Amino acid sequence: MKWLVLQVILASLLLHFGYAYKYETYFYKQKVDHFSFVDPDSYSQRYLINDESWDSDGGPIFFYAGNEGDITWFAENTGFMWDIAPEFNALIIFAEHRYYGVSLPYGNKSFTEPKYSGYLTSEQALADFAELISYLRIALPGAKNSAVIAFGGSYGGMLAAWFRMKYPHVVQGSIAASAPILQFIDITPCEKFGQVVTADFARESSQCVEVIRNSWAAIDAVTADEVGMNWLTGAWKLCQPLKTQKDVQKVKEYLTDVWTNLAMVVCTHLTEPTLEPKALLEELFAGACTEMVMPMCYDGVKDFFEPSPWDFKAYATKCYESWNIYPRPLMAPMIYGGKDISAASNIVFSNGLLDPWSTGGVMWNVSDSVVSIIIPEGAHHLDLRSSNPDDPQSVIDARILEKKYISTWIESYKSENEI
Amino acid sequence: MKWLVLQVILASLLLHFGYAYKYETYFYKQKVDHFSFVDPDSYSQRYLINDESWDSDGGPIFFYAGNEGDITWFAENTGFMWDIAPEFNALIIFAEHRYYGVSLPYGNKSFTEPKYSGYLTSEQALADFAELISYLRIALPGAKNSAVIAFGGSYGGMLAAWFRMKYPHVVQGSIAASAPILQFIDITPCEKFGQVVTADFARESSQCVEVIRNSWAAIDAVTADEVGMNWLTGAWKLCQPLKTQKDVQKVKEYLTDVWTNLAMVVCTHLTEPTLEPKALLEELFAGACTEMVMPMCYDGVKDFFEPSPWDFKAYATKCYESWNIYPRPLMAPMIYGGKDISAASNIVFSNGLLDPWSTGGVMWNVSDSVVSIIIPEGAHHLDLRSSNPDDPQSVIDARILEKKYISTWIESYKSENEI
Repeated sequence: MKWLVLQVILASLLLHFGYAYKYETYFYKQKVDHFSFVDPDSYSQRYLINDESWDSDGGPIFFYAGNEGDITWFAENTGFMWDIAPEFNALIIFAEHRYYGVSLPYGNKSFTEPKYSGYLTSEQALADFAELISYLRIALPGAKNSAVIAFGGSYGGMLAAWFRMKYPHVVQGSIAASAPILQFIDITPCEKFGQVVTADFARESSQCVEVIRNSWAAIDAVTADEVGMNWLTGAWKLCQPLKTQKDVQKVKEYLTDVWTNLAMVVCTHLTEPTLEPKALLEELFAGACTEMVMPMCYDGVKDFFEPSPWDFKAYATKCYESWNIYPRPLMAPMIYGGKDISAASNIVFSNGLLDPWSTGGVMWNVSDSVVSIIIPEGAHHLDLRSSNPDDPQSVIDARILEKKYISTWIESYKSENEI
Repeated sequence: MKWLVLQVILASLLLHFGYAYKYETYFYKQKVDHFSFVDPDSYSQRYLINDESWDSDGGPIFFYAGNEGDITWFAENTGFMWDIAPEFNALIIFAEHRYYGVSLPYGNKSFTEPKYSGYLTSEQALADFAELISYLRIALPGAKNSAVIAFGGSYGGMLAAWFRMKYPHVVQGSIAASAPILQFIDITPCEKFGQVVTADFARESSQCVEVIRNSWAAIDAVTADEVGMNWLTGAWKLCQPLKTQKDVQKVKEYLTDVWTNLAMVVCTHLTEPTLEPKALLEELFAGACTEMVMPMCYDGVKDFFEPSPWDFKAYATKCYESWNIYPRPLMAPMIYGGKDISAASNIVFSNGLLDPWSTGGVMWNVSDSVVSIIIPEGAHHLDLRSSNPDDPQSVIDARILEKKYISTWIESYKSENEI
């Protein structure tokens, strides 16, 4: 728990002060639909560039595969890329994911109905990245023969891994940090996630776990009548008074998220400064309602959450009511292969054992070039953050190993292309 | 030229008599758009199955990646799969390509406007194949652990190769016969194709080449006035009288196709029994107007065609006028990698040297498992046809080698999955 608390504090500090990373902002005209010829629309994708360390005569490109959020936030919080760019003489690029930050395909209308929101898929996002890199290789003098290394964390880590699998001619290797590419139906049991969250807290105090486990029934008991609801509203200083059981349910869902996020140390959405909280939740949900269907369930015994089975039908109904879209839970495994990734090459999957998402991560060496790095004291993609005097040794070692693989990929690309 | 003539005769005979291959016909409900959530429509894809040779306890699946035409025609003309299925105890599946045969996503409206025709892309077709196989693995008792080997010729060969590259978790290896995956802008010079057509004829008679080369100017001279046009109409027994220079141009384009097809021995569209010729040409064009932009040019010196530069602008304008669609010439190379396929595995690229499409084929061994087989006396995917007493030794050898690779892929899949 010590490292976890430290990481939470560090993340909080970063939010207030940030690092003064410098970049130039550009936009690239992308097709809204890369795979069909029905919709000819295009949109402007934002990307950030820093070339201070770049050797434009063969230096590599470090490409951050943007995930669900404003890309400037990821640029500020992915210190690992900035830390190691000088020794690799690398160009740094951060590409924003479509439908996030300012890269909205249909502006304010982007989330209003399926004909605008329906292009929010990982397949389209990867094609954006491939198009962007293909363009930059031509547009930037010296980039033609640069090896491209992709980086990403969490959903961005999934994108980085899948990017290498689907576009190995575009990206020569990927660092996929805390990438739960196995967190899909029939691949990873839905109860594992909550068990790791619970275990994180149990490391600190088994009493704490019991308090949380009992809290659900306590909330129910207290809020059984109006008096109790008023009391809890006051006691917890809730912004809006509890009036119905639905309100109570929302509070419990919020608490579930708080415990989970504390274990993950991922505050992307809670800390996103430019968007209203409601808009953020909506965005997250829109993404989740297409292909990123990641089953979660809790039994309240092996974990400390309120018991709740995985109910795809209820989930799908909610999606349709909110977004007029039926999710496709088998889409991502069908397209990307689930755990059958033996044909892939040049990917590092890193996972912190404190991170509940590690239950959906690749935790074994798939082959000589698709490897798993375990960081016992790590939470959610700690290795992508800037190095810090308080880093546990395991994350220092992980970063050294990652750099070794990056070097290997660059060298092998150079020798293949006789550069 | 001897083999070429023989192959033409054989192909013609097949058209009249065919082989009595038996199969059952099924339909699978496919999403019209696999990559976005805008269009929730689905359509029925036709596929054919033969399980006479199948060992349902681990026998492999031989999967034909349907290309531009009625799938029953490909089933009749891909004897290689039928010939070798018994010794592999293989299940045979032929899947029809969307927008061909009876697999029309929007019935009679399928080609009327982009909102219907715009889903005719190779990316969507490959996702159809992946979905179908994923379904059959569950639906067919015993298919769960079957290795899948993809076969395809010409555009179908391109699909087979790309299928393995993009979905290595679905297909364990591919026989890609006469697959011009390099026949794209900036990868293969546009003049090569016509030169091979010309060389095929030159093998037989250099005089013949001269006659054809001079024919274009002769046609122009004769049709300079109405008298000449009428004369040629009668002499060539044209169905419709020549009246304008545009009519003359069409005759020349027809002749260009005849010489090319004779060299290719591919009569798919001329021989397709169920569709009107006009419909066929329209279909072909619709496909070509999206992503399959394969530059061709002729100089009339190194080849015997009427000189004609590659003019993308004119090509694109014509596409837009006909189909309201602007082609994307860089789409396929961007998605599939052009000649940068070093990360691929388990693909045999076979090419006949008589085949003009070999100029866009993979004619070198990319790696230990991505190999090229050259058939000096072969025309367009001769190796996929049924074995025949008149086969040249080179195609007999090619088929033996292909079988060897298929065995290797199946064995390695079995040992990886401990079957």
